[in-house]
Amino acid sequence: MKVDGKPYRTIWRVGDAVEIIDQTRLPHVFTTLRLTTMEETVHAIKAMQVRGAPLIGATAAYGLCLALDRDPNALEAAHATLLATRPTAVNLRWALDDMAAVLRPLAPAKRAEAAWKRAAAICDEDVALCEAIGRHGLALIERVAKRPVNILTHCNAGWLACVDWGTALAPIYMAHDKGIPVHVWVDETRPRNQGASLTAWELGRHGVPHTVIVDNAGGHLMQRGQVDLCIVGTDRTTATGDVANKIGTYLKALAAHDNAVPFYVALPGPTIDWTMDDGFAIPIEERAAEEVTRIAGVSIVPEGSRAANPAFDVTPARLVTALITERGVAPATREGLLSLYPERRNRARA
Amino acid sequence: MKVDGKPYRTIWRVGDAVEIIDQTRLPHVFTTLRLTTMEETVHAIKAMQVRGAPLIGATAAYGLCLALDRDPNALEAAHATLLATRPTAVNLRWALDDMAAVLRPLAPAKRAEAAWKRAAAICDEDVALCEAIGRHGLALIERVAKRPVNILTHCNAGWLACVDWGTALAPIYMAHDKGIPVHVWVDETRPRNQGASLTAWELGRHGVPHTVIVDNAGGHLMQRGQVDLCIVGTDRTTATGDVANKIGTYLKALAAHDNAVPFYVALPGPTIDWTMDDGFAIPIEERAAEEVTRIAGVSIVPEGSRAANPAFDVTPARLVTALITERGVAPATREGLLSLYPERRNRARA
Repeated sequence: MKVDGKPYRTIWRVGDAVEIIDQTRLPHVFTTLRLTTMEETVHAIKAMQVRGAPLIGATAAYGLCLALDRDPNALEAAHATLLATRPTAVNLRWALDDMAAVLRPLAPAKRAEAAWKRAAAICDEDVALCEAIGRHGLALIERVAKRPVNILTHCNAGWLACVDWGTALAPIYMAHDKGIPVHVWVDETRPRNQGASLTAWELGRHGVPHTVIVDNAGGHLMQRGQVDLCIVGTDRTTATGDVANKIGTYLKALAAHDNAVPFYVALPGPTIDWTMDDGFAIPIEERAAEEVTRIAGVSIVPEGSRAANPAFDVTPARLVTALITERGVAPATREGLLSLYPERRNRARA
Repeated sequence: MKVDGKPYRTIWRVGDAVEIIDQTRLPHVFTTLRLTTMEETVHAIKAMQVRGAPLIGATAAYGLCLALDRDPNALEAAHATLLATRPTAVNLRWALDDMAAVLRPLAPAKRAEAAWKRAAAICDEDVALCEAIGRHGLALIERVAKRPVNILTHCNAGWLACVDWGTALAPIYMAHDKGIPVHVWVDETRPRNQGASLTAWELGRHGVPHTVIVDNAGGHLMQRGQVDLCIVGTDRTTATGDVANKIGTYLKALAAHDNAVPFYVALPGPTIDWTMDDGFAIPIEERAAEEVTRIAGVSIVPEGSRAANPAFDVTPARLVTALITERGVAPATREGLLSLYPERRNRARA
């Protein structure tokens, strides 16, 4: 998407190196970093200079390229090192396994060139997936009669989390680019503030009107008719349509349901966990208390007070109006998902 | 309540002066201030060294005393000056009108002494009101079979908002003092963080176990059975039981309802607005965007992003399990409230 008029992806190749946007410096400083070794990609992932499941996968794929450039026999060791960077990110394993499957049959001397080709393809495929999600979601925005269309989102499911477009934000960018007046309510998304620091930044740089609100405010806005629809992303969605996403998503889904505001979840196919039927079985990461107790280095709680920091919650499928995937829009039910991914129906029967 | 073993109120007389806790320094610094002139009480209210509707009223009452000490003819001018400090606080007008009604019939020379007496009585009456709320709420906590009893609260409706005990926290202090194991989930309460800075502080100083969470987390905890009941305060409750309270309260009430967790609202009688039947007619204060965009002096949003900051929301009566008042516990309905305040039934008939 555009940064002050210039189109960007979140990761791109420059000769024998890759460049990324250093997301730890946003929203106040926009700076790119050149990564020339696998070790630098490992650091970029661990230090969250890149984050978002699809972008982590793409960065790891390029990490393999850099490792093979230096040592054509480095495939297995590099695969293991990169996989250990963020053990819970699903796309990380997917991207690394995909690369390895392509490269293992090749003679070591041929691997580096093939790796660069496949890593670029992984990026292009992610962009295509998000673009398709955007087209399907755009139709839902176009259907709203009011102008501007007021859309609420939580956390960051934009192009900064992917290679381009994003998931939840892709339909919004397409509507904006098409001249449909949209306005986005951006939940700040405590404790890490991905909404205030990343979503607001990327919407602003692309010129999309938006207003940052505290996470407490969305229900009030929905009660007052100031939200026409909600779109969020997801970290994992079950085969029955239960949605794990950033903590607080469930509260917004409840408010949307209570006020008859459509609540959509945008996701690429690989985010569906076909092995799970019950969202409450999805393990919820408990992160460091310091993310709650310190903001910008300053403690906001009294000495001696402890904090808890569950990072995700589960929105039951009954509160989700529909799922927006690269294959189209479907109800958040097993039948809805199987109607889009019929090959999964056959597997279940097998 | 106790601060590290020593009992405190939020305001008390010392000779010809009053002392307060400077709440702008909490949670990191506990310091008291001596106010010796009416102008100093005006500043304390405006600068939010004292806040919370009952405490604002008590501080204004003492402001009148200090004005009359200096000039026995200052009653009407001081009343007007103090009333202008926080025009939306209901208890401010109530306390000043109460003082004026007592003092106007007296000769000017007798007013100062009578003012000190009446201001002290206003404080004692507030303590008695909160204590009665505490006793009625305690019975609801005692009824929970599990130990510890996990209670979620939002914002600060504790003794720092009143003279002592608080409203929502009074039952919790009484349960703790009685030896019932309680644990409080403290919503940090963005944007002003009254939960993290005030509620966590006063619970900690009194020795009540508690854990600070982001406002996004409460729904997840309720889904997982980690909240036995919710108790919050209110800034205004209609005659039909709709509850205006700090922004975000509505989202927690929705989650409580969705998970069959009792959701109680604690309030003194004067907080009931008998003239209003519809919570959505209560005017909602829109506060400065900077409360959202800056934390501890640091901007957390990109340059050019704007923010909205509605300070309160309305929880419909249907989501409130019961109201806890100084007269007892009643359903959040017109009939429920009239059963506790039958004199209002007579007035409505008159």
